[in-house]
Amino acid sequence: MTQTQPGSLARTDGAVRTRTYTWADPSVTLAALPGMSGIEVLSAIGRGELPPPPVMCTLGMEPVDVGEGWIRFGLLPQEMHYNPLGTVHGGVLATMLDSAAGCAVHSVLPAGMGYTSMDLTTKYLRPVTARTGRIIATGTVLSRGSRTALAEARLTDTRDHLLAHATSSCLIFSLEQAGA
Amino acid sequence: MTQTQPGSLARTDGAVRTRTYTWADPSVTLAALPGMSGIEVLSAIGRGELPPPPVMCTLGMEPVDVGEGWIRFGLLPQEMHYNPLGTVHGGVLATMLDSAAGCAVHSVLPAGMGYTSMDLTTKYLRPVTARTGRIIATGTVLSRGSRTALAEARLTDTRDHLLAHATSSCLIFSLEQAGA
Amino acid sequence: MTQTQPGSLARTDGAVRTRTYTWADPSVTLAALPGMSGIEVLSAIGRGELPPPPVMCTLGMEPVDVGEGWIRFGLLPQEMHYNPLGTVHGGVLATMLDSAAGCAVHSVLPAGMGYTSMDLTTKYLRPVTARTGRIIATGTVLSRGSRTALAEARLTDTRDHLLAHATSSCLIFSLEQAGA
Amino acid sequence: MTQTQPGSLARTDGAVRTRTYTWADPSVTLAALPGMSGIEVLSAIGRGELPPPPVMCTLGMEPVDVGEGWIRFGLLPQEMHYNPLGTVHGGVLATMLDSAAGCAVHSVLPAGMGYTSMDLTTKYLRPVTARTGRIIATGTVLSRGSRTALAEARLTDTRDHLLAHATSSCLIFSLEQAGA
Repeated sequence: MTQTQPGSLARTDGAVRTRTYTWADPSVTLAALPGMSGIEVLSAIGRGELPPPPVMCTLGMEPVDVGEGWIRFGLLPQEMHYNPLGTVHGGVLATMLDSAAGCAVHSVLPAGMGYTSMDLTTKYLRPVTARTGRIIATGTVLSRGSRTALAEARLTDTRDHLLAHATSSCLIFSLEQAGA
Repeated sequence: MTQTQPGSLARTDGAVRTRTYTWADPSVTLAALPGMSGIEVLSAIGRGELPPPPVMCTLGMEPVDVGEGWIRFGLLPQEMHYNPLGTVHGGVLATMLDSAAGCAVHSVLPAGMGYTSMDLTTKYLRPVTARTGRIIATGTVLSRGSRTALAEARLTDTRDHLLAHATSSCLIFSLEQAGA
Repeated sequence: MTQTQPGSLARTDGAVRTRTYTWADPSVTLAALPGMSGIEVLSAIGRGELPPPPVMCTLGMEPVDVGEGWIRFGLLPQEMHYNPLGTVHGGVLATMLDSAAGCAVHSVLPAGMGYTSMDLTTKYLRPVTARTGRIIATGTVLSRGSRTALAEARLTDTRDHLLAHATSSCLIFSLEQAGA
Repeated sequence: MTQTQPGSLARTDGAVRTRTYTWADPSVTLAALPGMSGIEVLSAIGRGELPPPPVMCTLGMEPVDVGEGWIRFGLLPQEMHYNPLGTVHGGVLATMLDSAAGCAVHSVLPAGMGYTSMDLTTKYLRPVTARTGRIIATGTVLSRGSRTALAEARLTDTRDHLLAHATSSCLIFSLEQAGA
């Protein structure tokens, strides 16, 4: 899969950093959604044929790989992700885990079906910093019912240490009935 | 409290958006942490005397108000926060809720004490888009023990509708014993 | 509201305890459900006009009070609730919190509507033993949508100390459509 | 491993059921805890050399099998476990999952170390009734740090369908420092 660009980063002086990045109009992907299965949408984003969602560009998340029932996203932890304690903010990790869990569910839905995340339960196990190196969020579908699905996501470093863990329940619905 | 700047946003053509934003070297705030109580640190960030953490600039989060045991952050939902479904990504909401819960705990800690979030359980209740207008995350400490604390965070719109809800458990420790 | 009986407890020798308790055929309450609103069902159980569910008798839980959007259950912690560590098992507390959250949602549903709990996120804050005395679980509806509702439950002792906390998401559905 | 007895159940008339069951004084197991490793305690309970905790007798839970980092408990769903909706109460399932997650953590602790569950996040996937047949909760340690551990528990039926899922964070501490 292709990678989103983290954007240019200029250190204008000793204390202030400036970052410039771009993203594409998300309405292109949104318009394509109803006619495509989940795996088709996610694969097209991975191949760069559909633009990634803006939040991925804002945080520097990258699609890595996808199959039916699972997906992987990557991120290179940087100072722009830091909380006041000098580590990557838990919300950035939650964003990766939420994407991985939600898109794993999306990957098993046929065209005409939509989903929405009802919750995300994140456990933080190890601090993540720029020294951690690239981190990977892997989402997997644990259970799919007619109205809901449960997915799990694991965040690991390159040595496969578990850094964080999440589960997420999604509502599944017909896009037609939902009026979308 | 002062506001972080969301950065300049240029629409270079019909499909590509470019955003440039800045943040300050986080080591300044990090170095000040051990000698200040939590409420002192958070108030100083709110007054602009200490730089906000980088992730707040990356996502356009703003400090709003803080007291002992509670804190409020704001965010103006924008396209840069969007997921593929055309709404603000749940991870952005989780970031606000994580900040609100964690900083509420920080606000009751004296100088020399640190904390780390062990988990974040987020419930998504209503979709958030740019049309929602400014959203506010309010964090409150529910319980403080000697080793752990529990905080709650509520995300509301300007009409006080509950958009999302979270609880978070934090470990509390002496910075000296932790070698920090 | 009336109280369920915890059953007779005979200490047959120094090491073995024997407990005998009773419950009523639950099919009576189950048959009454479709024609009654939630608050009517819960009030009838509280007044002893409908039998409480068997699990309440098994664990010695008691209905305390109920209104639209909230409910309270009580329990007197006893040795029969203990885990290997000499405290009330977390699952017993989770049962009280699950009942309180779920029944709070039930209390706002009209006749013909059903619900099912999708999850329960419990935080354990203080150990509970027989010396704690009577504990109360209070459930409250935080948000009600068309398809889901979010409820919170708090477990407190008689001095109103928070012992445990939970949130629960429920699916809401028409009993007719569900074929029940 | 041996099985706890679910107790005698007499149907005294068409509507009232009476159950009598026994458990052993839990102080025997409690006194043995400090000198034994977790796996030694859990194996001794499984072999019937130490009495099971009272709550297992109250709910009819049975030890099934245990190893370092994992454990299995069984339960035969019965009317005594039912909620008002005619299914096994979610709290009973939460009790099994809490036991499985907590004891999986206990199984990796040496003598002199204790643990306490901080939370339990349970997802309910399928309703459980007496017709479901025997259900099994399997707990597994996902991550063990110096101060905390994360465990997962899965509840399955005899055809290995996932009925419920949970994660639990535990605090780990020295029994000596804790004054126990």
